[in-house]
Formats: sequence, C-alpha cells, structure tokens
Amino acid sequence: MTITDRAQDTGWNQRYGATEEPDHTEVPDVVRLQLAHRSVRRFLPGEVSDDELRTLVAAAQSAPTSSNLQPWSVVAVRDPQRRRRLSTLAARQQFVAEAPLLLVWVADLGRARRLAERRGHKLEAADYLETALIGFIDVALAAQNAVVAAESLGLGSCFVGAIRNNPEDVAAELGLPAHAVAAFGLAVGRPDPAEHAGVKPRLPQEAVLHQETYDAERADAQLTAYDERLTHYNERYGLVGGWTDRVLTRLAGPESMAGRHRLREALEQLGLPVR
Amino acid sequence: MTITDRAQDTGWNQRYGATEEPDHTEVPDVVRLQLAHRSVRRFLPGEVSDDELRTLVAAAQSAPTSSNLQPWSVVAVRDPQRRRRLSTLAARQQFVAEAPLLLVWVADLGRARRLAERRGHKLEAADYLETALIGFIDVALAAQNAVVAAESLGLGSCFVGAIRNNPEDVAAELGLPAHAVAAFGLAVGRPDPAEHAGVKPRLPQEAVLHQETYDAERADAQLTAYDERLTHYNERYGLVGGWTDRVLTRLAGPESMAGRHRLREALEQLGLPVR
Repeated sequence: MTITDRAQDTGWNQRYGATEEPDHTEVPDVVRLQLAHRSVRRFLPGEVSDDELRTLVAAAQSAPTSSNLQPWSVVAVRDPQRRRRLSTLAARQQFVAEAPLLLVWVADLGRARRLAERRGHKLEAADYLETALIGFIDVALAAQNAVVAAESLGLGSCFVGAIRNNPEDVAAELGLPAHAVAAFGLAVGRPDPAEHAGVKPRLPQEAVLHQETYDAERADAQLTAYDERLTHYNERYGLVGGWTDRVLTRLAGPESMAGRHRLREALEQLGLPVR
Repeated sequence: MTITDRAQDTGWNQRYGATEEPDHTEVPDVVRLQLAHRSVRRFLPGEVSDDELRTLVAAAQSAPTSSNLQPWSVVAVRDPQRRRRLSTLAARQQFVAEAPLLLVWVADLGRARRLAERRGHKLEAADYLETALIGFIDVALAAQNAVVAAESLGLGSCFVGAIRNNPEDVAAELGLPAHAVAAFGLAVGRPDPAEHAGVKPRLPQEAVLHQETYDAERADAQLTAYDERLTHYNERYGLVGGWTDRVLTRLAGPESMAGRHRLREALEQLGLPVR
C-alpha cells in the first residue's frame, strides 16, 4: 500500500507528514481513533447524557493509578451560568461557556486527608511535591482515557489548562474542599462539523523518541523541518509562524503565563503544599 | 440484558461490583478495552517490534498537549543490562528488568531551553512550577494513549512510578540533558496469561464524580462499601486489608516515600525549578 493510501486510512500522514508508516497487518481501530484526534471547540446543540458521562468516568477510573490511591475527582458542570463564570475565570474562552458539558478534573488529596483525620492518623507524605504530582499525573491519565472514550462515542473535547489561571476562584465556584485543586477542564460535546478542526501535525518521532539513551543533537536536528511543516499548517488557519516562535513566546516569562506563575502559591493556599 | 450478562461483556462489574451499567445500544470496543485494563508484570518471551514501538509513540504524540508545546520525550530501553540497572534504581522491581521493553517517559523542557539558547531568547516561564507541571501532565496524557494503544495490539504494560525514587541516577543512566526529568517508566511486553492479573476494583463513581459542585459528605459515604469490596479482592491475591489502610500506610510520611520526599530538590538539581 502506498503512503498516501495508508494516510487516508489511518491519519498517520496528517500527524507526521509524508513519512513511512509502521507496517502492521491491521492498524487497530483504537489507534486509528487516537491518530485522528483533534481538539473540538465548536459543538452542536444537545446534551451529553448521564449514560455517556458515566461511561467517560468509567473509562477514566479504569486508567492506572499509583498504588491504587485514586487521588482525583471530577466535577461535571452543565449549568450554563456556572459554565459562563468558569469561562470568565479561564481566559474568557468562549468554548468553555458553549460546550454542553464541562468536566473539571481535580487533583484531590482531600479524600485521603479526611480519612486520616477521621482515624487520627498522620498523613505527612501529602505535604510533599511528589504526592501533589501523583495527583496531577493520575488525573491526567484518567482524563486522557475519558478523551478517547468520548471520541469512541462520537463526542469531541478540548482541554482547558486556563482553569489554572485562577485556582482559588475556581475552587470557590466548585465548592472544592481543602487539599483539592482543579488541574484542568475538559469541554465535551457533539462536534460541529462546520468547525473544520484539523489534525495538528506533531514533531517527527525522531525528535521525541530516543533509543537506549537521550541524543539531543539527533533529536534537535528535526526541528527545522517541523517548523516548516507547522508553518504551512498554520497558514491554512490564517495563522503566522511555526513552532519555535510560538514556544518561545509562550514560555518567555511570567507575563506570558496568564497568572499561572503563582500556581505554587495557589497550591499552598488550597492545601497542596509542595515541600 | 441483566447486569451479569453485561458484566461479562464489558468488564463494568469487575471495576464497580454489581452496579447498574450505563445504557448504551452498543458499548464501543474502545471502552471495552479500557474497562478491561489491568497492570501486567509478567511477560512472555519475545521483543516488542520497532513497528509496534512506533505505533505506541504515534498514539502518544496524538494526545492533546498544552499550546502544542510537546514538552516531553521518551527513551526506549531494551538492553537487558540497562533495564537491570534501572530496575535496581526503581525499588528493585523484578518486572522492570524482565519486560522486553521499558519506556521511560521524560518531562522535557530541555528542547525549548536549547531553542531559546540558540536564538538568544529568554525562557523564564520555564523556571516556574506551572511549566514543570505542564511537562508532567502532558507526558501523562501521552503515555496513557500509549497504554491503550499497546492493549489494542495485544501488549500489556505497567507503570513504574519508582523511577522517581532516584531521579539523578536515572538521568545519568539515560544520558538526559539538563531540564529533563524521568516522570515514570512503563514496562511493555506480551502478557503471560499465567499471571492471572485481575481487573482492580475502583471507587464507586459516586465517590469521585460530582454534579455541579463538590459534595464531600455524599462522596465519602461510599468509602466503607469500597473498603469491603477491595478487601475481598485482595484476599484472592493473598493480601490482607482494604483501601483505607493501604492509603494511610502509603502516605504516612517521608519514610513511606522510598526517597521521593526529596523530589523537589532533585527537580531543581536537574534543571526543573519549581518557583
């Protein structure tokens, strides 16, 4: 099969450009679904049903979790007023207010803290960065399973990192208890085909995959070609510039962080110290 | 369809016990695969092929990433000596040495730092906890896609959080450049059916899913029943105790953290400051 034929089948070339695909007798449907992922920010009218929501949460809970700690929760927000208020807190992104369902994923050490308190046990490991990090990693593993499950149900989604722009206000809006912090949002709904959302090209595998040991020189040699490929992709959406420019602008300094330079302070305020 | 019949189909009841499943005309194969997830620590002989590896990485790179930063890398370790040394660093877990493939997932701000240096730009946002956290969250989203893709290819896997027990030694072993830290490992191979790995029961959805706002009292009311369910599950594997005991033991204090209480110091050593 030619590269072009395979590309239409699997989405490989939308992700990587015209590069050779792995040779499988059959590419699993799951992988096809994953390769075809795109962020969806425009939704058709209509609710995400309770059955669909429960399926997303079941997929999320089926993801691995460190020592079975399950240090996360998720708040399902459908109320339009609350979505609008959360949208205002999250960089005023319109799609957060418009999506029928906003899932707010919470790194949650509160459950274990409350258990320890009821039993009169100490829980000092919860004071450390490592444990907060387990909360954020495990809620990310869970949420990604929900993203894939949503797509298998014909739903689309987009993560909302800007939920971390104002962690204390988001915690107040959702009534979060102590030791629980919103890690990110996920807007969910039925994709509006009029959005024409693209499959975003990614770095060549040679830039991120290392064999046995890390080879920075070999990896970084891939970046110029990727910059060109992403520049072409961006042009299709009326955007100027490639990857490097955007990364350097995004990470220039605290002024480019939309308030998130104070995340550590916010975590400590909310009871997730990072000792 | 009765609950029992559906349970055999979807794995729902292994995850949640005898509770009512969501009503779907058809449960997608993807969700069935996710519900049936189990950690695999015993592997049949035989390599994970390069084509399989490239498919896992393509799935990983297709996961969402904040502002398309792609702040992660992955090191594929097949060399038995290197796997043995990494196993020694990761709490001497035998399966890390025995799996044919160990993927070490790296939160990697080094790529952006090197770009900034070459261009003479400042990259001060990379000094903040928020940016390190984006690295850890995005590599977790990516790795979970790889876990699901692996299962669709008939492979099994198990995360290795203990790779964070000795971050500096792991970085040295893998030749990681500055500003790159191993977030976790993932052992991958063909599952040995003799392991009889179970589908781990999780908290009832009512304990983790909140509607509109967080309701701690309603959620925590679920924990006693879960403790009982997990105690029964553990007994099948010759283990004593339920969930609460294990969580409280695991998070008791720095002495229960296998060295990870010093993660913050290690991150700063390796160039991921958490300002």
